[in-house]
Amino acid sequence: MPETLIKVDLTQSAYDNDMVHNRWHPDIPMVAMVKPGADFIIETYDWTGGFIKNNDSADDVRDIDLSIVHFLSGPIGVEGAEPGDLLVVDLLDIGAKAESQWGFNGFFSKNNGGGFLTEHFPQAQKSIWDFEGMFTKSRHIPGVRFPGLIHPGLIGCLPDPKLLSTWNEREIAFVNTDPNRVPALGTVPFGPTAHMGRLTGEAKDKAAAEGARTVPPREHGGNCDIKDLSRGSKIYFPVYVPGAGLSMGDLHFSQGDGEITFCGAIEMAGWVHLKVDLIKGGMAKYGIKNPIFKPSPITPKYDDYLIFEGISVDEWGKQHYLDVHVAYRQACLNAIEYLKKFGYSGAQAYSILGTAPVQGHISGVVDIPNACATLWIPTKIFDFDINPGADGPTKFIDGSVQMPLSPDL
Amino acid sequence: MPETLIKVDLTQSAYDNDMVHNRWHPDIPMVAMVKPGADFIIETYDWTGGFIKNNDSADDVRDIDLSIVHFLSGPIGVEGAEPGDLLVVDLLDIGAKAESQWGFNGFFSKNNGGGFLTEHFPQAQKSIWDFEGMFTKSRHIPGVRFPGLIHPGLIGCLPDPKLLSTWNEREIAFVNTDPNRVPALGTVPFGPTAHMGRLTGEAKDKAAAEGARTVPPREHGGNCDIKDLSRGSKIYFPVYVPGAGLSMGDLHFSQGDGEITFCGAIEMAGWVHLKVDLIKGGMAKYGIKNPIFKPSPITPKYDDYLIFEGISVDEWGKQHYLDVHVAYRQACLNAIEYLKKFGYSGAQAYSILGTAPVQGHISGVVDIPNACATLWIPTKIFDFDINPGADGPTKFIDGSVQMPLSPDL
Amino acid sequence: MPETLIKVDLTQSAYDNDMVHNRWHPDIPMVAMVKPGADFIIETYDWTGGFIKNNDSADDVRDIDLSIVHFLSGPIGVEGAEPGDLLVVDLLDIGAKAESQWGFNGFFSKNNGGGFLTEHFPQAQKSIWDFEGMFTKSRHIPGVRFPGLIHPGLIGCLPDPKLLSTWNEREIAFVNTDPNRVPALGTVPFGPTAHMGRLTGEAKDKAAAEGARTVPPREHGGNCDIKDLSRGSKIYFPVYVPGAGLSMGDLHFSQGDGEITFCGAIEMAGWVHLKVDLIKGGMAKYGIKNPIFKPSPITPKYDDYLIFEGISVDEWGKQHYLDVHVAYRQACLNAIEYLKKFGYSGAQAYSILGTAPVQGHISGVVDIPNACATLWIPTKIFDFDINPGADGPTKFIDGSVQMPLSPDL
Amino acid sequence: MPETLIKVDLTQSAYDNDMVHNRWHPDIPMVAMVKPGADFIIETYDWTGGFIKNNDSADDVRDIDLSIVHFLSGPIGVEGAEPGDLLVVDLLDIGAKAESQWGFNGFFSKNNGGGFLTEHFPQAQKSIWDFEGMFTKSRHIPGVRFPGLIHPGLIGCLPDPKLLSTWNEREIAFVNTDPNRVPALGTVPFGPTAHMGRLTGEAKDKAAAEGARTVPPREHGGNCDIKDLSRGSKIYFPVYVPGAGLSMGDLHFSQGDGEITFCGAIEMAGWVHLKVDLIKGGMAKYGIKNPIFKPSPITPKYDDYLIFEGISVDEWGKQHYLDVHVAYRQACLNAIEYLKKFGYSGAQAYSILGTAPVQGHISGVVDIPNACATLWIPTKIFDFDINPGADGPTKFIDGSVQMPLSPDL
Repeated sequence: MPETLIKVDLTQSAYDNDMVHNRWHPDIPMVAMVKPGADFIIETYDWTGGFIKNNDSADDVRDIDLSIVHFLSGPIGVEGAEPGDLLVVDLLDIGAKAESQWGFNGFFSKNNGGGFLTEHFPQAQKSIWDFEGMFTKSRHIPGVRFPGLIHPGLIGCLPDPKLLSTWNEREIAFVNTDPNRVPALGTVPFGPTAHMGRLTGEAKDKAAAEGARTVPPREHGGNCDIKDLSRGSKIYFPVYVPGAGLSMGDLHFSQGDGEITFCGAIEMAGWVHLKVDLIKGGMAKYGIKNPIFKPSPITPKYDDYLIFEGISVDEWGKQHYLDVHVAYRQACLNAIEYLKKFGYSGAQAYSILGTAPVQGHISGVVDIPNACATLWIPTKIFDFDINPGADGPTKFIDGSVQMPLSPDL
Repeated sequence: MPETLIKVDLTQSAYDNDMVHNRWHPDIPMVAMVKPGADFIIETYDWTGGFIKNNDSADDVRDIDLSIVHFLSGPIGVEGAEPGDLLVVDLLDIGAKAESQWGFNGFFSKNNGGGFLTEHFPQAQKSIWDFEGMFTKSRHIPGVRFPGLIHPGLIGCLPDPKLLSTWNEREIAFVNTDPNRVPALGTVPFGPTAHMGRLTGEAKDKAAAEGARTVPPREHGGNCDIKDLSRGSKIYFPVYVPGAGLSMGDLHFSQGDGEITFCGAIEMAGWVHLKVDLIKGGMAKYGIKNPIFKPSPITPKYDDYLIFEGISVDEWGKQHYLDVHVAYRQACLNAIEYLKKFGYSGAQAYSILGTAPVQGHISGVVDIPNACATLWIPTKIFDFDINPGADGPTKFIDGSVQMPLSPDL
Repeated sequence: MPETLIKVDLTQSAYDNDMVHNRWHPDIPMVAMVKPGADFIIETYDWTGGFIKNNDSADDVRDIDLSIVHFLSGPIGVEGAEPGDLLVVDLLDIGAKAESQWGFNGFFSKNNGGGFLTEHFPQAQKSIWDFEGMFTKSRHIPGVRFPGLIHPGLIGCLPDPKLLSTWNEREIAFVNTDPNRVPALGTVPFGPTAHMGRLTGEAKDKAAAEGARTVPPREHGGNCDIKDLSRGSKIYFPVYVPGAGLSMGDLHFSQGDGEITFCGAIEMAGWVHLKVDLIKGGMAKYGIKNPIFKPSPITPKYDDYLIFEGISVDEWGKQHYLDVHVAYRQACLNAIEYLKKFGYSGAQAYSILGTAPVQGHISGVVDIPNACATLWIPTKIFDFDINPGADGPTKFIDGSVQMPLSPDL
Repeated sequence: MPETLIKVDLTQSAYDNDMVHNRWHPDIPMVAMVKPGADFIIETYDWTGGFIKNNDSADDVRDIDLSIVHFLSGPIGVEGAEPGDLLVVDLLDIGAKAESQWGFNGFFSKNNGGGFLTEHFPQAQKSIWDFEGMFTKSRHIPGVRFPGLIHPGLIGCLPDPKLLSTWNEREIAFVNTDPNRVPALGTVPFGPTAHMGRLTGEAKDKAAAEGARTVPPREHGGNCDIKDLSRGSKIYFPVYVPGAGLSMGDLHFSQGDGEITFCGAIEMAGWVHLKVDLIKGGMAKYGIKNPIFKPSPITPKYDDYLIFEGISVDEWGKQHYLDVHVAYRQACLNAIEYLKKFGYSGAQAYSILGTAPVQGHISGVVDIPNACATLWIPTKIFDFDINPGADGPTKFIDGSVQMPLSPDL
């Protein structure tokens, strides 16, 4: 077996593990060095460091302090990596920790993070998903079962000081355009809950005060939440600092395009078996700004989909200009209404869209003023037939099982 | 052979064919009636009615009067169809007219329609694509060849007066928020170039003055430009008027997600063999607002992709809030830069993204403030290997072939 | 449109068309010459030259004189082709003749050709399949509908005299080991019904007397009945005579692996749009004996199959040594028994296996003494669910529709 | 984690593990009982019980006593299972033992088992394959790497006395038709090396003397070596004895259709996570004789293949009658010749066909006298391009690496 370079103990606080960090900063020390061509294993906490529990209450989803996320394992240094290189990462395999064969999904309260459909689902809710080998199902959402498209929601290399400063300037200015918005427009550096890995003392305090939050995807990749960065894929990351400094976390057993439930996909603690290599000077050679990747040859594949359309007129009738976000929201709302006809609650339907390998396609972005987006639901994830027919839908789901909900206090 | 209900003569003006129309209005008379279960053939003009020619000049793209589009064939009435039903349409097959085995793609001038990347490609350009059976290639863009994912860019049923009025109010108000914008925010009713099918006299003038333009996708479907509504797919359309009134046109031999080049996909004149059926009361039974559909079992499929990421920070460094449109634009610009390393001009690379069956995925829409979108290029459409490697890219394309460009006058 | 080099008139006898032949012989004159890189269209009769009719009697299947088959269109000469080259053939598209949107499938009487399961289905039966665009269904076999995987059952280049003589020696000697067997062990040259294209007089008589029958696949390809040589595929044929001499026919709208019904797949008259090119000296360069090919990027694809196993113990309990033919027959018989539980007659089930795109896999050929073969049925071709469940099968098919049968006279 | 019902210690002889057996017999005692609906883990030895080592000599392949195989883990009893039921088995996941991340492939000497191409490769050879997460590659066969299609080569339920007796009568009589053949026609009961699980004393001796060997696939499934029974698939097994008695082993990391190398696929020790359920009376309800199954939704999938044809004329020119075994052998030999042009030795090419997920299709079985079989090689398993081109092949493999070979003593 390849060496496990970073281990995590799920009974221990992530803050006590110095091979973990929850901010991006060039000064975070490498916790291990590897050679190009090496393969090794990295263990990770779930993104909340174990805050969300395997139980039937959504209180933890409601009460979480989101400034603590995401707990990443790393950074790993690669010998010979220099700024301008491409770090080639093969995700050889990914899995849940043996002692933790479950994951969670939920919606944050609108007052604590919100989410894509927070106007419609403003309160904290949660579902727990049990893993059965390569498959998962939830005791809170009957009638649906699917194989995992396992992937890290978050992976990327350390920024250099210039890139970090670009991020901070850009995002702080943006948040300041509406600083009291709920949910917030963005996340800004916040020292008190920062975990800076092996940095200590003043160096830590300085870096904690300016370290970029891990929430948004950025030029380096980071929290892209791309379900197709799945085990078996190959990713080409831009390198900004000597040694590259690769970190990762936020593992998902499965996720729908958009990660629309925000808390989040099917979130889990686990391990990543990966291999690293370098393309020297690859950023300039290939004109790379953001990571590029190749999908895995071994993924859950479906041929039969039911597809929902949405256009950029919002649910209150307002016209937006070629806005794909609004269009996708409509496609999602249309799908939720449809699934309710089979007996699901709106929250259950929303959760299915957030967890199952549904696809979100950008279908038209030029036909002014409406963008068109489509949501693709694989029909085979259901125990029953969800296709339309002349007789109308059957209520296969009787409503006796519901998702835990915790009202705001 | 099934009956051809609508024929078009490509040597004749579309305005002279009374089974064609270019506006949406409930008063447009049905041109044929069919029974549920019937299958039949409909011929269509290309969306411009033949304005764009198979030649090596982009003058026609620059000079076109866009108020004439799109020339649709129909409406077809279905016996027994009533408001609230779903019209089930099987696209049994689609093809180019035998005498017209070619299509066009282009970018409009920023002053005449523009497009997704109009800031970067502000002038009229054109490429011609020749069909070789199920495949296509262009004399203006070497090194790329792919099978067609043939589909109608535009298909849907007539609106009722209430829906028409919703559209007009919504869009006129929106355009009026910035009436002098170039390109315009939207398209509003415009009588002089309206073709109202078999309506004549005062009835025609009235309807022409209020008929909705065909450009945006709307609740009824319409100009969705969804590449996956391809031959072999099955679509469920909302019905608003007695008889349904199904019209279609804007056939594409192939298109990338987003139809980002706007003028447009690979546009062609052709025919659609379709079959219609009804789900009585289906809109309420299934909670349908926009059309839903099932993809074709017989499409060009690829396993190997090179995937580009984009985030919602625009090309000038400005932060946008979870804006998928901006994120997809960055992914497209990233892909164009990459393809240029192999010798393509920016315009050629842009055209490939507009015409080949590239996928646009909505990858993350909750990680404030950045949305993440991905652009998937099937690697096998190229005659050469576009994957990254340690040696850097080879200039397979020598630049000797370029796309026609017509500067603004 | 590309030029149609060979036309066939379905109201005329195939014997009256001098661009058609039904034997393989090096002396058959080319009917047209093309340059490498050319694309063109070839029309073909169905393999019987129109003997089987679109009606509800199997008399024609019972009474056909099988020495007349297969009517091939060609040979086409390619300029510059020499023995030892590879002829590269792109099947750009294939379709049924516009005036003949149907095909047939059947079983021959055991006394007139028989078939794979002739012990179980010894009498002539027939089913007619109607085409609906890219799809087909049969009025004789309810509950099943699928898109066509359209392909030529028979395509290849002319043999040279040496290869012809190898064939004749090999096969005549083999037939002579049991000359009175019913069905016969093989087909031997037979002058009276030979159609030698443009050969006339003595030259024709000589060639007719020694021309190889078209039934078996051989080194040059020929009657391979490979369903995956479908439109969009690319084939590399060995060239034996100057000019190559490419002929083709026996078009199938669809076929299951093995073409087990023998009469045959869904047989049709139609056209092939193809393109030819050369790899000079390709046979030696690549060590080619039989044709090789690459599958089409655009085919009906399925993800969900029900798979039947068979081993090389025959239906009477007899042990055979690693015999894949016997194993596949058992898998087919197992599938037929299964489908009968849903209400199909054995003949209908057999026909489905012969016509639908079922796959036959060689699964194990070394575990002495049993070979193992598998038969893959795509579940989505049925209107109902054929998967096993705790409640047992439902008789969706009520038996009111049966296939025509014509007892031996 | 689910319970591990059977553990194997790779440092211990398989004969010392009483939850293992290497013959089929109804008297072998269940080693554990589970309820329908249960999921659990079973560990297994490799099929030889550890005889073949991870080294660079083929001596072990040459010297193995094949009467010891296959070491199976089980039998597992299922509460309530009765003869006539179907045992539904979900293969939830499968993997290699953590301490044994490698597998072997080889050819037996013609004098000790032989194989599919033993006339061409009569001596013992071996290759070792290292696993890298979901992928594998071999230090003995450069230029090829692919993800695992992990599956049990052997799985099935215990026979009842009548079925056992059918097997023995059938196979013993068959072997006796040519008892001195090398390789043998089959395998017959052989007490001395029998491992009968928890049977002891006289009962053991009696059962050992009549227990069926595990080599051939039979009515119950058994050693089917079907690569598509992979993790994620669902299998329906006939039940013959109360409790069903499910055993399994012979795990393969990957295998080509036919397992043509016989020793064998990529053979490994590992574990299976599975779930069992029952369809009461399912054999009669569905007319089941052999197992049926549904493939996994999550497998390595390829779109691009290079396909080789073979017909039933053998490599010495002899005609066989619709013999798919001979036809597939020709397709394999054709592929080996082709791959040699790129620099592989014949043995290396043969090994690739035995280990990589190549497909073997039964393409035509009715065109007398020739069967046609096809061998599908996924092109993407190679580091280089194996497609034919005008310039002929490049010798990417320089011959410096060869497979170990051990001549007969």
